[in-house]
Amino acid sequence: MASREAGFKKYAEGLEKVAANYGPLTPLSFLEMAAANFPARPACVYGDDRKTYAELYARARRLASALIKHGIEPGDTVALFAPNVPACLEAHYGVPMARAVLNPINIRRDAEAVAFILDHGEAKAIITDREFSPVVGPALERARVNPIVIDIDDPAVDGAGDLLGEFEYEAFLEEGDPDFAWLPPEDEWDPIALSYTSGTTGNPKGVVYHHRGIFVASTGQPLSWGMGYYPVYLWTLPMFHSYGWCFPYGITAKFGTHVMLRKIDSKDIFDLIANEGVTHMCGAPIVLNMIINSKPEERRDFPQTTQVMTAGSAPPPTVLEGMAKLGFEVIHAYGLTECSGCVTACFPKDDWSEKDTAAVAGEMARQGVRYATFQGLMVADPETMTPVPKDGEAIGEIMTKGHPVMRGYLKNPKATAEAFADGWFHTGDLAVWYDDGYIQVRDRSKDIIISGGENISSIEVEGLLYKHPDVLEAAVVSMPHARWEETPCAFVTLRDGAKTTEQDIVGFCRENMAHFKCPTRVVFGELPKTATGKVQKFQLRDLARNL
Amino acid sequence: MASREAGFKKYAEGLEKVAANYGPLTPLSFLEMAAANFPARPACVYGDDRKTYAELYARARRLASALIKHGIEPGDTVALFAPNVPACLEAHYGVPMARAVLNPINIRRDAEAVAFILDHGEAKAIITDREFSPVVGPALERARVNPIVIDIDDPAVDGAGDLLGEFEYEAFLEEGDPDFAWLPPEDEWDPIALSYTSGTTGNPKGVVYHHRGIFVASTGQPLSWGMGYYPVYLWTLPMFHSYGWCFPYGITAKFGTHVMLRKIDSKDIFDLIANEGVTHMCGAPIVLNMIINSKPEERRDFPQTTQVMTAGSAPPPTVLEGMAKLGFEVIHAYGLTECSGCVTACFPKDDWSEKDTAAVAGEMARQGVRYATFQGLMVADPETMTPVPKDGEAIGEIMTKGHPVMRGYLKNPKATAEAFADGWFHTGDLAVWYDDGYIQVRDRSKDIIISGGENISSIEVEGLLYKHPDVLEAAVVSMPHARWEETPCAFVTLRDGAKTTEQDIVGFCRENMAHFKCPTRVVFGELPKTATGKVQKFQLRDLARNL
Repeated sequence: MASREAGFKKYAEGLEKVAANYGPLTPLSFLEMAAANFPARPACVYGDDRKTYAELYARARRLASALIKHGIEPGDTVALFAPNVPACLEAHYGVPMARAVLNPINIRRDAEAVAFILDHGEAKAIITDREFSPVVGPALERARVNPIVIDIDDPAVDGAGDLLGEFEYEAFLEEGDPDFAWLPPEDEWDPIALSYTSGTTGNPKGVVYHHRGIFVASTGQPLSWGMGYYPVYLWTLPMFHSYGWCFPYGITAKFGTHVMLRKIDSKDIFDLIANEGVTHMCGAPIVLNMIINSKPEERRDFPQTTQVMTAGSAPPPTVLEGMAKLGFEVIHAYGLTECSGCVTACFPKDDWSEKDTAAVAGEMARQGVRYATFQGLMVADPETMTPVPKDGEAIGEIMTKGHPVMRGYLKNPKATAEAFADGWFHTGDLAVWYDDGYIQVRDRSKDIIISGGENISSIEVEGLLYKHPDVLEAAVVSMPHARWEETPCAFVTLRDGAKTTEQDIVGFCRENMAHFKCPTRVVFGELPKTATGKVQKFQLRDLARNL
Repeated sequence: MASREAGFKKYAEGLEKVAANYGPLTPLSFLEMAAANFPARPACVYGDDRKTYAELYARARRLASALIKHGIEPGDTVALFAPNVPACLEAHYGVPMARAVLNPINIRRDAEAVAFILDHGEAKAIITDREFSPVVGPALERARVNPIVIDIDDPAVDGAGDLLGEFEYEAFLEEGDPDFAWLPPEDEWDPIALSYTSGTTGNPKGVVYHHRGIFVASTGQPLSWGMGYYPVYLWTLPMFHSYGWCFPYGITAKFGTHVMLRKIDSKDIFDLIANEGVTHMCGAPIVLNMIINSKPEERRDFPQTTQVMTAGSAPPPTVLEGMAKLGFEVIHAYGLTECSGCVTACFPKDDWSEKDTAAVAGEMARQGVRYATFQGLMVADPETMTPVPKDGEAIGEIMTKGHPVMRGYLKNPKATAEAFADGWFHTGDLAVWYDDGYIQVRDRSKDIIISGGENISSIEVEGLLYKHPDVLEAAVVSMPHARWEETPCAFVTLRDGAKTTEQDIVGFCRENMAHFKCPTRVVFGELPKTATGKVQKFQLRDLARNL
């Protein structure tokens, strides 16, 4: 291109990429940096076990070196099946430091799903926690692959479960070199991790992350979520979930402290917040509920205001008020496994201080605006790719693009191509867009109900059902209808002892909502859920079809 | 490579770079993002003039589009000669949005230096402030290039200076398209800016920045310097200095507000801090001195603690105490034009709260540890590239590497190759390394004095001279010596009315310092300085050679 040649000619000579100014972007460099800057600062706290950054870095290098010694090669998959214990954090560094690919598996999955994942990811090794041997043992028997098995033998599990493999984790580390010259990726586009989606509609899909994307995504959390020096991060978010939203790297980039915990327990949470000075934590609304519903004797006072980021569903007003009273400040975020975690957050607005709690809660229920690390976000018609008007009414699909977006789904070029059609990542989430630029999720695209040509958000109907005093859980799906094509069908779990009838529920809905949106049928009982606790609506749709 | 093929085989298909997951890293995306997220938030405040992010983004696109309309092509250089006014910030976006290269020029330079820079950078356009026409006018006459001249006609200068060109900035913007589809770089390694070093030893060198490096460097400031939501940043740091340490982009990435000011004035600073709620600012120690020495009637109370980052020389204890009393918290950082600003900062240490002010001030005088965005930092022997021991005594050269490091010096492959020898950027600064990992600058490598084989830090001797009550300014350089080869020679400016003699000064030094470090000669008078206020030691060395 002639004009490019002319303008750029003076930059042609002597300005090439060299070792001093060009290297692969990788989040692994944050650990090397933190250990060089602050060798003696606390990196990882687990009960009485406190490891400094020098120690964490040495252990990560030991792990990398031991894996290579035992035959792990660049590009090999190393699975991880563990709760939020130190070995879990160490694997997030040690495995990719061997140029291998970390595959953290959801510890709530069953043996069949785990076997599928081990086979699909072609696991060459697995680091597994003995507490979970009742699942991992059968999974290994069932799987076709035959990985090296490394058992985490945590004294805290007190002999529960079995050791499955030939290596115990600490002994395995002993074989490694604490000064191992770890291997940065040859190319920043190389895979760093593989994370399987929950698979609400069939076999889980393997999301492939790359070093460059995770580097940028890791800076996005401290950048967009306000953080001072040296955050203390409590691991109430499962690290296997959406790659721990990249906090394994983001907190290290801030020279912060990772506070680990094996189980979510409200007393432990309060004790750690008070004793360790926790400044930040994340969790699904269930974690917030547990905190609010804690017993007075489990609670502790603490001087700091702990920041809590929640995602998965919007925090209700009562939760926001309750959390504030207990010393927390909540922010609501939205993300996906495919996007390395958060895409948007409902960043606080200046006028919230002048509004009442209900009004603020209403605004906080929205998913908000884009993280600085994403290059695009829109709510658009997936057919025409035209953005919907910012009127808070028109529903479109959330689309995004940018550095933190996955490379694609492993061995699934069709699903990858569909997800990336027209230059955008299609989230599959339906939302409205407000005039202040904030978005609000209305539904998964496959969950929307189209009745007589009108869109009905299953989330909106569920939101109303949750306001009924007898409703513990609710899920709304589409049911075939002769005249309207589709109509809402509600599945409801009642609170213990409640006597509410189907007619009561329908009547409650008709009093509080446009009639075409109201469920025509209400079915009582338990709701089927995935390993991550999401309701399996495809099962409910099957049931509704046959009512 | 066979093993790479094997391990990575499964990642070979369907996981390519596509528009949804791969685009050039560029800091320009932060403005698009901030305008999309927060169109109505204040982006840029200048006196009564308040512009929102929607407006700033529209003005930047107008500028890009108008430049292209007037013949600016990709890779062309657009010079900028302006104080910290809104047009200056706008140019940091608008010029590279046209794929042109921004060349911000130090407004303290003289016509000869400006002409050199315009010619060397091959400027095709210059945006210049009318207040500075007495310098820019003669520079344009002297220069061989013939750039388009766009005058900023700021009412605040009240008719001072002349309009030099055919375009007035606001009228020029009117010609542009506010919805212009700006051009991200074709390649993230493409140049974004050109910034000339101060040239203490001859002609200034042109540092070439690239989009990728500035993207990463811009995230480094909010990442490593603690920042909450929506910082309000007061532009006391000249934006032409080391690319404004990347704050033109970093503050925008945080959806923050840029508070502009044409001149550094202590009353204006206090008024803006109080009225605009300034949370962060930067400046050389001279800015801190001005604040501390402000008159009581110029001062204002403000509720926030304003964070101040200072670089160039260590803040003395009295300055730290004085600033704290006035509501500021100071952090000391270290950087270079070649590294897109800060490389290290003296991050606060946990035990400072238990130490007395003098001890803390002593620790704060150090340059500290690496920003998270750099991939390497060491204090090493430049001959052997061996790191010096971390004993606080051994002197080596500061070396660094990483994404924010420049591409090199324009049209100077020799200087570029020297700076990047052995895989590291050689800063030319000499330092010691403490056992806690913090570094402390002792001298520029060319300023160190080697007397009888012993290193003498000119900074250390100057530090002692500054403690003498009659000394206003001091600079120490090497002087040839028959027996010791070199010996220190001091140049001193005394305070008004002081009667101190050469013997007094030498005696004072000998009482407080090892004798071999003491100046053998003391010369009184004004010190020669560069446009950025740095003492020109090469001139003093010339003088000392002929004493």
